[in-house]
Amino acid sequence: MTGNEGDMSGKYTIGIDFGTESGRTVLIDVATGTTVAESVYAYKNGVIDHGLPVEGDSVMLEPDWALQDPEDYVRTFQTTVPDVLAKSGVDPADVIGIGIDFTACTMLPVTSDGQPLCTLPEYRLNPHAWVKLWKHHAAQPEADKITETARSRGEKWLDRYGGKISSEWFFAKTLQILDEAPEIYAAADRLIEAADWVVWQLVGEEKRNSCTAGYKAMWSKREGYPSDAYFAALDPRLANVIDEKMSRSIHSIGEKAGELTPQAAEWMGLRPGTAVAIANVDAHVSVPAVTVTEPGRLVMIMGTSICHMVLGEEERTVEGMCGVVEDGIIPGLFGFEAGQSGVGDIFAWFVDNCVPESCQKEARESGLDLHRFLESKAAAQKPGEHGLLALDWWNGNRSVLVDVDLSGLLLGATLGTKPEDIYRALIESTAYGTRVIIEAFEASGVAVQELVACGGLPEKNDMLMQIYADVTGREIKLSATAQTPALGSAMFGAVAAGHAAGGYDTIFDAARHMARLKERAYKPIQENQRVYDRLFTEYRRLYDYFGRGENNVMKNLRAIRDKVRSD
Amino acid sequence: MTGNEGDMSGKYTIGIDFGTESGRTVLIDVATGTTVAESVYAYKNGVIDHGLPVEGDSVMLEPDWALQDPEDYVRTFQTTVPDVLAKSGVDPADVIGIGIDFTACTMLPVTSDGQPLCTLPEYRLNPHAWVKLWKHHAAQPEADKITETARSRGEKWLDRYGGKISSEWFFAKTLQILDEAPEIYAAADRLIEAADWVVWQLVGEEKRNSCTAGYKAMWSKREGYPSDAYFAALDPRLANVIDEKMSRSIHSIGEKAGELTPQAAEWMGLRPGTAVAIANVDAHVSVPAVTVTEPGRLVMIMGTSICHMVLGEEERTVEGMCGVVEDGIIPGLFGFEAGQSGVGDIFAWFVDNCVPESCQKEARESGLDLHRFLESKAAAQKPGEHGLLALDWWNGNRSVLVDVDLSGLLLGATLGTKPEDIYRALIESTAYGTRVIIEAFEASGVAVQELVACGGLPEKNDMLMQIYADVTGREIKLSATAQTPALGSAMFGAVAAGHAAGGYDTIFDAARHMARLKERAYKPIQENQRVYDRLFTEYRRLYDYFGRGENNVMKNLRAIRDKVRSD
Repeated sequence: MTGNEGDMSGKYTIGIDFGTESGRTVLIDVATGTTVAESVYAYKNGVIDHGLPVEGDSVMLEPDWALQDPEDYVRTFQTTVPDVLAKSGVDPADVIGIGIDFTACTMLPVTSDGQPLCTLPEYRLNPHAWVKLWKHHAAQPEADKITETARSRGEKWLDRYGGKISSEWFFAKTLQILDEAPEIYAAADRLIEAADWVVWQLVGEEKRNSCTAGYKAMWSKREGYPSDAYFAALDPRLANVIDEKMSRSIHSIGEKAGELTPQAAEWMGLRPGTAVAIANVDAHVSVPAVTVTEPGRLVMIMGTSICHMVLGEEERTVEGMCGVVEDGIIPGLFGFEAGQSGVGDIFAWFVDNCVPESCQKEARESGLDLHRFLESKAAAQKPGEHGLLALDWWNGNRSVLVDVDLSGLLLGATLGTKPEDIYRALIESTAYGTRVIIEAFEASGVAVQELVACGGLPEKNDMLMQIYADVTGREIKLSATAQTPALGSAMFGAVAAGHAAGGYDTIFDAARHMARLKERAYKPIQENQRVYDRLFTEYRRLYDYFGRGENNVMKNLRAIRDKVRSD
Repeated sequence: MTGNEGDMSGKYTIGIDFGTESGRTVLIDVATGTTVAESVYAYKNGVIDHGLPVEGDSVMLEPDWALQDPEDYVRTFQTTVPDVLAKSGVDPADVIGIGIDFTACTMLPVTSDGQPLCTLPEYRLNPHAWVKLWKHHAAQPEADKITETARSRGEKWLDRYGGKISSEWFFAKTLQILDEAPEIYAAADRLIEAADWVVWQLVGEEKRNSCTAGYKAMWSKREGYPSDAYFAALDPRLANVIDEKMSRSIHSIGEKAGELTPQAAEWMGLRPGTAVAIANVDAHVSVPAVTVTEPGRLVMIMGTSICHMVLGEEERTVEGMCGVVEDGIIPGLFGFEAGQSGVGDIFAWFVDNCVPESCQKEARESGLDLHRFLESKAAAQKPGEHGLLALDWWNGNRSVLVDVDLSGLLLGATLGTKPEDIYRALIESTAYGTRVIIEAFEASGVAVQELVACGGLPEKNDMLMQIYADVTGREIKLSATAQTPALGSAMFGAVAAGHAAGGYDTIFDAARHMARLKERAYKPIQENQRVYDRLFTEYRRLYDYFGRGENNVMKNLRAIRDKVRSD
C-alpha cells in the first residue's frame, strides 16, 4: 500500500471511469481521498468506427458512426478491480462502496433482462444493435427534427437546452434506430444509457440516474419527460417510447443503486452486498471531486473540448447552455452545464497541420514535443504582442451560440507572423470563448466567482492556464488528481455505503474529506488583464457579427462547399 | 546565334533590366523581337540591408533600410553587354540602340557631374549617401507628412495617387535624407532616380524620364511638379528642391536620351554614338513588351506583389490607384497603375511558416518543391470545396484601400482543413483582390476587357492562372518571354534608333514587330465562374467591412501590438 496518509478509517471505495478508449479504476482511501491504487483497461474493441468487430469484419460503418462493445465494459470490471486489489493488498471486506461514471450520451438497446442486442446472434451483424458512443454523429437529421418539432409545438423544456437538441443526445440516437433499423427498435425492450446499464450489471436491477436523464434525455425532476403527445408528433411510433422502452423512475445522483450481486462480486473479487452508487457522467461527477458542492465556482473539464459546470439554487434560463438539471450534479441544487466544442482539438489541429519542418526540427533538438516547444516560444510574448485575434470555432460553437455551422477565423496575420504567434492566438481565442460563457451565466443570475479546472489540458499547459486567468479575470484552482472523474465516482461509492458502513451520508461530507485542490493556483495579472479586456472587446464584436446572423459568411461558405461537393 | 527566325533585318538592340538583386541584359533581333542572347550580373553588393559594404563593415543599418551600390550598375554594363555580344557573335556595328529599365523609386544623391556621393571618401560611411532602393521602408513618417501636408492644403494632385503617397516614393526618401543627414542633402547637387542616373552614365547628360517623374515624384505633363509653396509647407528647406536638386525638364517615354559616349561604349564593347532611350521602369516598360499599346487590356506583373497597368485616352480618378501619368507608359496615352502589395509573398510566407513536416516529406518524395506539391493537391479541388475565404492583406492593401495597417484574415477553418486548402484559399484571395481593382477601373470608366500577365508567377503556376481567369471572368494571355522588361527596354532602344537606322519610329511599330504572346491563354470556365461569383460577393463584403472603417479591429490590434511592444 502506498500513498496512504493522515486520518485513516481503514475503509476503501472504488471509482470506475468508463472513457472513450478505456476504463480507469481507482481504489481510494475513504478518510482522506488518497488514491491507493489505479488500473486501466484499454477496450479490446476501442471505438468502433470502421467495421463491426465480427468475423470477417464484413459489416462496414458510415463515416460519422462511433460504436462500442458492451463486453468491453464487463471486461473493465473483470480486470481493473482485481488489479487494484492486488496492487494495494486491500482486503475486499474493507471496500465499502463502488461508483461509476461514463461518457454520455452513450446508449444501447437491450432485452428486458439487460442483455445487449448486439450480443444476440440474430442482431450481431446489425450496427444499430451495438452501443452508440457519445461521439456517434450520424443522427443530425434526427436531432434537427427533434428541435424543430419542439419549437413548432412551443415546448417549454427546449429552453433548458439553449433552444437546441444535440445529435449526440438520447432521442436523436433513438430516432435514428427507429428510422434505420425498426426491427432493432422493436426488439429492444429497453433503450438505456450505458452508465445505467453497467450499474444494472452490478446490482441486478435497472436504476436510471438523474444526470443523463436530465442532460441527455430531456427529463426534469418537476416535469418528467416531454409529453407522449410530443413524442407522437415526432413520430407516431415513438408515442409510448418512455413507457415501452425506458422508465419514469429516475434516481437522483447521490442515491444508492443497490448492492453487488454475487456474479458481479465474483467478476471483481469484491464482497457481494457492497454498496453501489447510482451512475454518473464523467464531467458531472468531477464537480464534487474538485471540492465544488455549492454555487459560485465554475468547474471546467478541459481537454479536446471544455465542459463547464456550475451550481445554482434556482432554475435560470442561460443563453445557449447545454442544459440545466435539478439534482443533475449535486442533489438539491440545479446543475448548469455549458460547453466549448473545440479547445485542445484546435491546438492539435494546428500542431498536425500548420507547423513547419523547421520548427519540428528545432523542437526535436530541444527534446520538446511540439506543444511544449510552441508554448516555450509563445510564453515569452506579452499579451497583444502578436497582433492576432481568432474566433475559436474550428469545431463550431456550442455555448452560447449553439451552432455547428460556424467555423474558425484568424485575423491580423502579416508576413512576419510566426507559428508560435498563431498558437498563442488560438489558445487566447478559447479563453475568450470561456469568458463569453461566464458572462452569459452571470447575466442570467448564475454567479461565477472562481474557476476550478481539471482534465488533460491544465496538467501540462502553464501558459494556457495563466491566459485563462488573465482573460477571465478570475483565479483558477486545479484538481489535485489527474483522475478526477474516477475519484468523484469513488466518493459517490462512499456515499452509497453511508456513514454507518464507514462512508459518508452525503456528497457534501464526502467532498469535505476526500476532495482536494492543488496548492498552486493561477491568479490574474492586472496588466495582462487590461490588455486582454481590450482584445476581448474586439473578440466579442467579431463573435456577435459572425455568430448572430449579421454576416452569415460562414454558413454561406459551408452551403457552397456542400453544394459543390455533392455536384 | 540561336533562335533567330523569320524576317531578319540583321539589326539588333539591347535591353537592360536593373532588378533588385541583379542586372539582366538581352540582345534582341529588331525585326522579330527574338532573343539572341542574354546575360545576368548578380550585384556584388546585392541589397545592402545589414551593414555598408565598406572596410570593417562597421556602419550598421536600421531594420527597414535597403540600399544599393551604384558601382554595381556600372559593372552590369561592363560584364553583361560584352557577354551577350560574345555569346551571339553579333557585330557591335549592328547594335542600333539600347534601352534600360529600373526598379523605382530607387534614387541617389550625386554631384553636378553625376558622381554618386557614396563614392566620395568624405561621404562613403554615411548610409544616406548611398542608393535608396525601392524597398527601403524607413521613410514612413516622411511619407505621412507628405500626404498630410497635401491633404491639409487641398492639393489636387493627390487624387492622381489614390489620396496617399507611399513611403517608397521620391520625396519621402528625399525628406528622410534632409531630416536625418542634412549634410548629405546639402552636398547633393542632384537627387535623381537610378534609372536616369544610368542613362546619364551612358549619354553623358542628365535626361529625366516621365515615368518615374510621374509615378514616383508627383510630376504631371500638364501641371509639372507640386508648387514650391507646397514644398515650403512641407519643409522650408525644401522650397526650391526642384530647381536646386532636380529638373523641370522631363522627357517622355519613347524619346531618345542621346548617344553612347566613348567611355560608355568602351565599357560595353559597343559603337560610340549608339542610340540610347530615355529610362523606363521595369513594370511600365513591360506593357508594350506584351503587345499592349492601346486601352482595354490590363497588364499584370505578377510576382511577390502585382503591379497592374492599363492605358486610357483620358485622365480619370480611380479609387486607390498608385498613379495616373500622361506619357507614363505609352506616349500620347494616360497610364494607370494599381497594385496589390502581397501576392507571391503571401504564398511564400505560407510555405515557410505553415506547412507541416509530413507535407514536406511527401513533397520531397514526389520530387516537387512545396509550391508545386501544394498546387498538385489543391488543383484537384473544385472552387468552393475547401470552404475557406481569405482577405489577402498580409502585407496591407495597396489598391484600392491604400492602407498598410490592414492585415490578413482567414475564415472558414475546421478541424478537417488541410494545408492545401489554405494554400488554395490564399491564391484565390489574391485573385479576388485583382477583381476589386478591375472593378474599380471599370467603375471609373477605364475599360478592362482582357488581362495580359507576365512576371515570375504566371510562368509556373497553372492553377493560379486558371483561378485568376475564373475569378475575374476574363481571358488571360501570357508574355511569350520570361524577360519581359528587358525585351521592353530593347524595344525602346529600337525606337530611340529610329526607322532610318533600322529600328522603328514609334513604340507602336516596335510592339507590332517585336512583342509576342504565348499561344496558350487561360479562358474562364463558366461553372467555376458561377461559384467564384458567389464567393467574391462574400469576399467583397468582408473587404468593405474590415477595410472601410466599419470594424477597425485590424488597426486596433496593430495599435495594441505597437503599444505593448514599446512598453
